[in-house]
Amino acid sequence: MEVAMSHFARVDAYLQSHLDDSISELSRYCAQPSVSAQNWGLQETAEMTAEMLRQRGFEVKIFPTDGAPIVYGERKGRSPKTILFYNHYDVQPPEPLELWDTPPFEPAIRDGKLYARGVSDDKGHFTSRLFAIDALLAEEGELPCTVKFILEGEEETSSAHLAPFVRSHAELLKADACIWEFGGVDFRDVPMQYLGLRGICYVELSVETANQDMHSGLGGSIMPNAAWRLVWALNSLKGPDEAIRIRGFYDNVRKPTEREIALLEALPDPAEEYKTRYGVKSFLKGLTGGTPLKIAEVYEPTCTICGLTSGYQGPGSKTVQPAKASAKVDFRLVPYQTPEEVLEKLRAHLDAEGFGDVQITFLGGEAPALTDPDDPFVQLVVEAALEPYGQPMQIVPMVGGSGPNHVFIETLKVPVVTAGIGHPGSQAHAPNENIRLDLYLKGAMHIARILKAFGEN
Amino acid sequence: MEVAMSHFARVDAYLQSHLDDSISELSRYCAQPSVSAQNWGLQETAEMTAEMLRQRGFEVKIFPTDGAPIVYGERKGRSPKTILFYNHYDVQPPEPLELWDTPPFEPAIRDGKLYARGVSDDKGHFTSRLFAIDALLAEEGELPCTVKFILEGEEETSSAHLAPFVRSHAELLKADACIWEFGGVDFRDVPMQYLGLRGICYVELSVETANQDMHSGLGGSIMPNAAWRLVWALNSLKGPDEAIRIRGFYDNVRKPTEREIALLEALPDPAEEYKTRYGVKSFLKGLTGGTPLKIAEVYEPTCTICGLTSGYQGPGSKTVQPAKASAKVDFRLVPYQTPEEVLEKLRAHLDAEGFGDVQITFLGGEAPALTDPDDPFVQLVVEAALEPYGQPMQIVPMVGGSGPNHVFIETLKVPVVTAGIGHPGSQAHAPNENIRLDLYLKGAMHIARILKAFGEN
Repeated sequence: MEVAMSHFARVDAYLQSHLDDSISELSRYCAQPSVSAQNWGLQETAEMTAEMLRQRGFEVKIFPTDGAPIVYGERKGRSPKTILFYNHYDVQPPEPLELWDTPPFEPAIRDGKLYARGVSDDKGHFTSRLFAIDALLAEEGELPCTVKFILEGEEETSSAHLAPFVRSHAELLKADACIWEFGGVDFRDVPMQYLGLRGICYVELSVETANQDMHSGLGGSIMPNAAWRLVWALNSLKGPDEAIRIRGFYDNVRKPTEREIALLEALPDPAEEYKTRYGVKSFLKGLTGGTPLKIAEVYEPTCTICGLTSGYQGPGSKTVQPAKASAKVDFRLVPYQTPEEVLEKLRAHLDAEGFGDVQITFLGGEAPALTDPDDPFVQLVVEAALEPYGQPMQIVPMVGGSGPNHVFIETLKVPVVTAGIGHPGSQAHAPNENIRLDLYLKGAMHIARILKAFGEN
Repeated sequence: MEVAMSHFARVDAYLQSHLDDSISELSRYCAQPSVSAQNWGLQETAEMTAEMLRQRGFEVKIFPTDGAPIVYGERKGRSPKTILFYNHYDVQPPEPLELWDTPPFEPAIRDGKLYARGVSDDKGHFTSRLFAIDALLAEEGELPCTVKFILEGEEETSSAHLAPFVRSHAELLKADACIWEFGGVDFRDVPMQYLGLRGICYVELSVETANQDMHSGLGGSIMPNAAWRLVWALNSLKGPDEAIRIRGFYDNVRKPTEREIALLEALPDPAEEYKTRYGVKSFLKGLTGGTPLKIAEVYEPTCTICGLTSGYQGPGSKTVQPAKASAKVDFRLVPYQTPEEVLEKLRAHLDAEGFGDVQITFLGGEAPALTDPDDPFVQLVVEAALEPYGQPMQIVPMVGGSGPNHVFIETLKVPVVTAGIGHPGSQAHAPNENIRLDLYLKGAMHIARILKAFGEN
């Protein structure tokens, strides 16, 4: 223990004294836009990512796909045991630009935070891992275990090419455990171990009723209106009772286990924090907080309208009957639903309800997936948090978000854990995205300990 | 009859020989921008309008309002019987500029047409009336009846100051009949008498469920979504059967009379033209054409979504749960509905349906109004078309659009008729707005005959 402490004292000292260097590298990385939804800067960022890995002695390969390239890096360690990091170099669109206090691609430090689009999701996670590797290499000259990185550039647009890549490169990616792209503390500053992810099926519903918009004085009584068709089609999916009306939608929904519910019960009640942060007056379905809210939050599938577009949207009035209308709709899935199943049931539902004119464009999907909270690697990662954070991680068996963890869990047969630098105010996907520099440092300390403990056990 | 013919032969000869002068005056008038939506050139155009009236011996007054000035002109005639012309000197915005073949404020003649923003709507209508007056004054030295003009500068932005002005200046505007700002021929070149206008109540419905957008992985199961609230609120207004569900909405709807139905029956069937022009496959409510289609088109009130806005509307996917959503909604009203009544019933409906969170912003309204097709003045105007057009006007008892005709009908107790220079390809409100010079001449001939017949009967 004394030896271990003195060892980590040196690693921690390295991290503390080199924090500015790592933040500078992260700032340069964030200044390079990489907006997958807008196909902006992806190739450049893939090459930048590869170079950052090469500088740490990784063997790197950039794999082209029909979308953004996948970057792979590997460096052997003292132990052949292998940890695989999954990260992504793409970011969310920066809009609405007017709500940013400083420009999204001009990283700026204020009050102990670094602000930039992608700084938390996910560029800061990647560089904090490189930072931990820098410290281990500086102190030991080699890594305690073999480390692999896979970074994609399409995470924010549903990872279209990741799953086939992982399936066709299972040997290359072979590992004993996987550390996921994100992680961090909750509002109490307690480090959290997020184990399961919901799935997602993201579609655009669109309808076209004429070859041009028409004067609303002409069309209103006799000609079809695309906006109305869309509203009625959406209304057929879910009513104000929040029950999703697609036939068979709930057939494959697994209820949470007693162990999962016990883990949820141990977590703080998020009700007041949500109300304060989002200015929400009350929750859906009569929920008020506690375990029922926590269960509903992650163990229920959703049907969310993410966007609506039709006709005139400017100031004042324009008397037009729209020829086109569309909606972005996001279904979050729980075990054992699949996006393919939802797509099929959605089409059948719309046809059965008389909305054969509503087109479905599939914009991306992921299956839900779980890692066993009692897996030994989970326990190692949980315990490794003790020194940096002053306490072990608390396990969250499932979170509301989605990602391609199922591909790794099912194809590579690895546990997938989280360990990262996020905090509840990080504004991921929103203006003024940021990281806290203190948590950036702690996150790197945690990763260094995980690699060391894993290599030596 | 011989005398009358010879009289109009001289008037017609004057019009034919002075057409170029009138078109030159119209061109100068159109070269002066007067875009009410952009508050561009309104004062200058009001003064130009006043000067054009003064040159014909009218006593003119410019009334300032909180918006654009109202121009009033009056010239006594042989008979004290009075015709009031309603016109407007403002025009639609010229955008999109790149679609104009020649610049919108540089009038150009091509293929027997004059092109310019506002040339049809409504500047050419005004000058063609002045042109008829020029001919009568040249031939007779005085007008056969008293003529009044009222021109506003806010017609294209909902005539905010017209109704209160008319109500507070009823004595000044006192007349026996009113000729409306527009008119013209249909696609067969048959002159049309458009008698009634539907009313309108234009609102924006908006809902806000949180103080910011949230990640859709977080909010979907437990927190309210503004886009869903809006969809459900809209769906409560009208279902796929097209029946408007607002309680009492149809209470004051007057069915068309047998006379009105007979007038509609005499009109050509618009079904095929609509299908071709708009690419519409079928009509609503099982309508296929003929009189039922013509009745539904104008004698049924509507609830039209003119625009929808919420959340992410760009390319690809963004996993966001919107905090705000809004819709532009246009109700077309039929006698005896009123915009005030609809606003009140809409609020009561939303509250009763559980949508107290949906805000209503009133963006403008007009009551519907009718002129009796058997009014003697209507018959006079219809018959006066015989010589210029080779046939009398065909009466359309009601059209789908809206305007402030109700203010004149109700306040001044006058019949309101149309007589004008428009044609179906005039591109009013669109690029390459134009008039046909042959119809400009016929329109002036028609107006001269109306004034003469009215003064002498």
